Amino acid sequence: MRQTRLFLNTMRENPADAEIASHQLMVRAGLVRQLTAGVYTFLPLGYRVLKKIEAIVESEMDAIGAQEVLLPAMQPEELWVESGRSETYGPDMFRLADRHQRKVVLGPTHEEVVTNLIDNEVSSYRQLPITLYQIQTKFRDEVRPRGGLLRVREFRMKDAYSFHTSPESLDETYRDMHDAYCRIFERLGIGYRAVEADSGAIGGSGGSHEFMVLSEAGEDTVAGCTSCDYSANLEKAVAVPLPAGDASATPAPLVVPTPGTKTIEELCRLLDVPASRIIKVVVYFADGQAVGVCLRGDHEVNEAKLKAVLGADHLRLATADEVLSAAGKRVGFVGPDAPIRMLFDRDIQSVSDGVAAMAGEDEHKIHVVPGRDFDLSETVDIRNVVDGDACPRCQSPLAFYNGIEVGHIFKLGTRYTDAFDTTYLDANGAAHRIIMGCYGLGTSRVLAAIVEQSHDEKGIIWPSAVAPFQVHIVLVSVKDEAQVKAAESLYHRLYAAGVEVLLDDRDERPGVKFNDADLMGVPVRVTIGNKIKEGQVELKDRKTGDVQVLSAEEAFATVLGMVK
Amino acid sequence: MRQTRLFLNTMRENPADAEIASHQLMVRAGLVRQLTAGVYTFLPLGYRVLKKIEAIVESEMDAIGAQEVLLPAMQPEELWVESGRSETYGPDMFRLADRHQRKVVLGPTHEEVVTNLIDNEVSSYRQLPITLYQIQTKFRDEVRPRGGLLRVREFRMKDAYSFHTSPESLDETYRDMHDAYCRIFERLGIGYRAVEADSGAIGGSGGSHEFMVLSEAGEDTVAGCTSCDYSANLEKAVAVPLPAGDASATPAPLVVPTPGTKTIEELCRLLDVPASRIIKVVVYFADGQAVGVCLRGDHEVNEAKLKAVLGADHLRLATADEVLSAAGKRVGFVGPDAPIRMLFDRDIQSVSDGVAAMAGEDEHKIHVVPGRDFDLSETVDIRNVVDGDACPRCQSPLAFYNGIEVGHIFKLGTRYTDAFDTTYLDANGAAHRIIMGCYGLGTSRVLAAIVEQSHDEKGIIWPSAVAPFQVHIVLVSVKDEAQVKAAESLYHRLYAAGVEVLLDDRDERPGVKFNDADLMGVPVRVTIGNKIKEGQVELKDRKTGDVQVLSAEEAFATVLGMVK
Repeated sequence: MRQTRLFLNTMRENPADAEIASHQLMVRAGLVRQLTAGVYTFLPLGYRVLKKIEAIVESEMDAIGAQEVLLPAMQPEELWVESGRSETYGPDMFRLADRHQRKVVLGPTHEEVVTNLIDNEVSSYRQLPITLYQIQTKFRDEVRPRGGLLRVREFRMKDAYSFHTSPESLDETYRDMHDAYCRIFERLGIGYRAVEADSGAIGGSGGSHEFMVLSEAGEDTVAGCTSCDYSANLEKAVAVPLPAGDASATPAPLVVPTPGTKTIEELCRLLDVPASRIIKVVVYFADGQAVGVCLRGDHEVNEAKLKAVLGADHLRLATADEVLSAAGKRVGFVGPDAPIRMLFDRDIQSVSDGVAAMAGEDEHKIHVVPGRDFDLSETVDIRNVVDGDACPRCQSPLAFYNGIEVGHIFKLGTRYTDAFDTTYLDANGAAHRIIMGCYGLGTSRVLAAIVEQSHDEKGIIWPSAVAPFQVHIVLVSVKDEAQVKAAESLYHRLYAAGVEVLLDDRDERPGVKFNDADLMGVPVRVTIGNKIKEGQVELKDRKTGDVQVLSAEEAFATVLGMVK
Repeated sequence: MRQTRLFLNTMRENPADAEIASHQLMVRAGLVRQLTAGVYTFLPLGYRVLKKIEAIVESEMDAIGAQEVLLPAMQPEELWVESGRSETYGPDMFRLADRHQRKVVLGPTHEEVVTNLIDNEVSSYRQLPITLYQIQTKFRDEVRPRGGLLRVREFRMKDAYSFHTSPESLDETYRDMHDAYCRIFERLGIGYRAVEADSGAIGGSGGSHEFMVLSEAGEDTVAGCTSCDYSANLEKAVAVPLPAGDASATPAPLVVPTPGTKTIEELCRLLDVPASRIIKVVVYFADGQAVGVCLRGDHEVNEAKLKAVLGADHLRLATADEVLSAAGKRVGFVGPDAPIRMLFDRDIQSVSDGVAAMAGEDEHKIHVVPGRDFDLSETVDIRNVVDGDACPRCQSPLAFYNGIEVGHIFKLGTRYTDAFDTTYLDANGAAHRIIMGCYGLGTSRVLAAIVEQSHDEKGIIWPSAVAPFQVHIVLVSVKDEAQVKAAESLYHRLYAAGVEVLLDDRDERPGVKFNDADLMGVPVRVTIGNKIKEGQVELKDRKTGDVQVLSAEEAFATVLGMVK
């Protein structure tokens, strides 16, 4: 394609609202434009990349026998009421009424619709297992769209759903899907980790992996072992339990005044103890019941683990009033002996000489020993792992990374087939619930993640599998006949050889052309300038920066070798 | 693909709500399923066909230099207010408010969004002309969805938009687009006509063509010459003016009583004259003004022509009260001499001895001659052409067909660039309005139109370019080892040769298999049954029904020849 014909405006400056590299570069290189908050147009250059990503996804889905369908974007709200998710999704879902006042939602995902389809179409075990997938525009009314294409309200996604007669059959498809995702990210040329993820209260066979692109711009935290391949998102990550503290020399508890201490930090400062010696209590409301969580002052409650332990659907922090009425004390002065149900993090036992709010208001007890000075009724793993924790598999230290979640695969079990009473008949004519898995991959988010991971200060560096063009010919001067002739000749030869080639035939200064080429990030650049007098052109690798000066003929052969 | 693995249920009976062949067959052959009124899921078989249609459209758009983009489905309502179409679309558009109460519409089309994009991105004549296209899911809140995929609320469409500095440049792209559409429909293997279409009050350079698939199920009427290639939709079709009547022997007008005659039919019966001798007047309100239309009793007003003549935005029939108050007479008794603006159809002059309501109530005048007994102030072509009219190009008779509109191309001129004040700077730095064209093609509607046009009583007959599979191997008995061996061998050989082949490996009765194969309509069927004992298989052309009995080896070569 000729650049004079390409619908493209590059920009020198970062857009004012763009905070992360992928957002800045995708706008500057003319891949996308925002229409309204969190809603983007894909321009020709961006759409070329998106289509390549989606073609790779498609081919790997086909390869494992998944069948492509297209489910509607508009879904009757009643399906979501039936599954119970109309309420849990709340305002995150776009909702409307049609001209007959029937309620409709715009699909953020398709578990309900696909389960309804299977409910209508599948009756016999002979029709199972089956895996359906689609690549489609999805809608989600994010509170605060951000990060360019990372968190938007209209996005592209591949979603797949599998249906089975047995957990073993689900396991098999789940493994196939896991491996297909690995091949997809490898083919895309993107660095990723498949991490164990929380399967929440959804239940079922209870397996889940997230596919994370490691990046500073990521909103998710991944805990990974520095030695083995253990990886999990923060919600799911576990560590080796801490050793129990030795309290044999700890004196008896003593009440000390602690007026006005509202935070762990203030208490530590006043008493000159580290946060690891504070025994704190956080009060939640889980499905309408108050429950206290007791853990070390330097640890944080992991709400996903808490929800799973409690089997709770709804979980939130108690308000100040609720704390007072449930525990009889003000926030900050509820102790592990409070008269409410109390869950203890197992690592509270590492405290050998602690500080706890087991006295009056504006007082604390020091020299408190868990188990000696208060009962440890329910002891569970209920905290986030932190720096210094050890890998549950090999005891090496855990490290923490930011990641962009680009895929999520999930053993759903019967969560949705229960809701829609979706059954099959076995060989003996007996009815059983169908078992289900679901598998998401955000294709537009992958695009942003690739840019986030693969760029330098000059612009994007496309992995060749998804580059909008394979070769960028920069014709330095359109007024120089020899340059024009050489550029046109190479352009036509590469085009005829099936190479996706972009020819910068604009009447612009060389600096503008080089800057744009770096910004756009096509993997191979051929510069045709003054050296053409000696029959020479320059070939540059965008990623390594390596430059070769070659004859035009050598350049043709070398480029062919690089892109094929 | 093996049919035992394909997600497919065929049905023997027509669904109760399906009235037309394409709807019945697409559901019965397992191409689509309705989720809710006018909203369909594409199942694997249907989606394979849709993707082939869209790939052909895409390749022909690329071939004329159109560049593919993806514009958002969610659009700020304010863009539609700015263009004035928020009002004219009314309840046909899905509207919603997001969580911040900002108003959003779901795009039924993208003139507003793309003009806004061009307004932001294009400043110089050097960036023009440019043509952008997309293939996308569109939304339209139809009052009465019907006909399976013919009139739905969520559908697939290719829409393209071109932008120009001159009408000549628009003409050139319009011609390219017209020719590309012809190539698309030819490649799809579909019988179509490109017909002149009404360009309504939208103005601009004022050219428009509709692409019609001729079919009984079509909602549109096409008038086509029985001799030359003149074709136009009914709104636009014109005919040779009728010869003027010879009134030299017509007596003077005479008032006769016509009590209780409310319709043309009643009047004809009472007076024993044909409708062609009645001089009728229909009263409209155009932009708030009453206007009468005078034409022959056997002719119908063409509202598109009327709107164009009046340059009116809003046109409707006057109510009974409005007729009485504007013309001073009751409906049915308003004559060509009524005291309101009156437009005369030019063919009223063919009446040599007419009947008109030029007397009191419950009376008519007979022996009325237009021009003699009332003034012909404004004489225009304002009626629908009818059976018996002659082609405006060659005077041969016109014939009428039903058609399904599958494409519409349109010279918009500055309709939208005026609304958004979208200009470019010429070489001298002077600003001019950008000129625009738009080009739609309903890909899911094309799918239905193909089935509508290409089927028999047994099922669908796919044109090979869009068939979901190229070859259907029917293995008659999965219990016969020789048949299984031959079928598997042919299946693998064809698959390896790049043929899209479906193997019916189900344990079903032969009749079920043959009926399903006919219903699904794959172009070539290879039946492997008892004759395999003699080394023979049967090859059947779905369209012609021709059967050849061949050796397995000959069958392989023959099939390859048929599908390549």
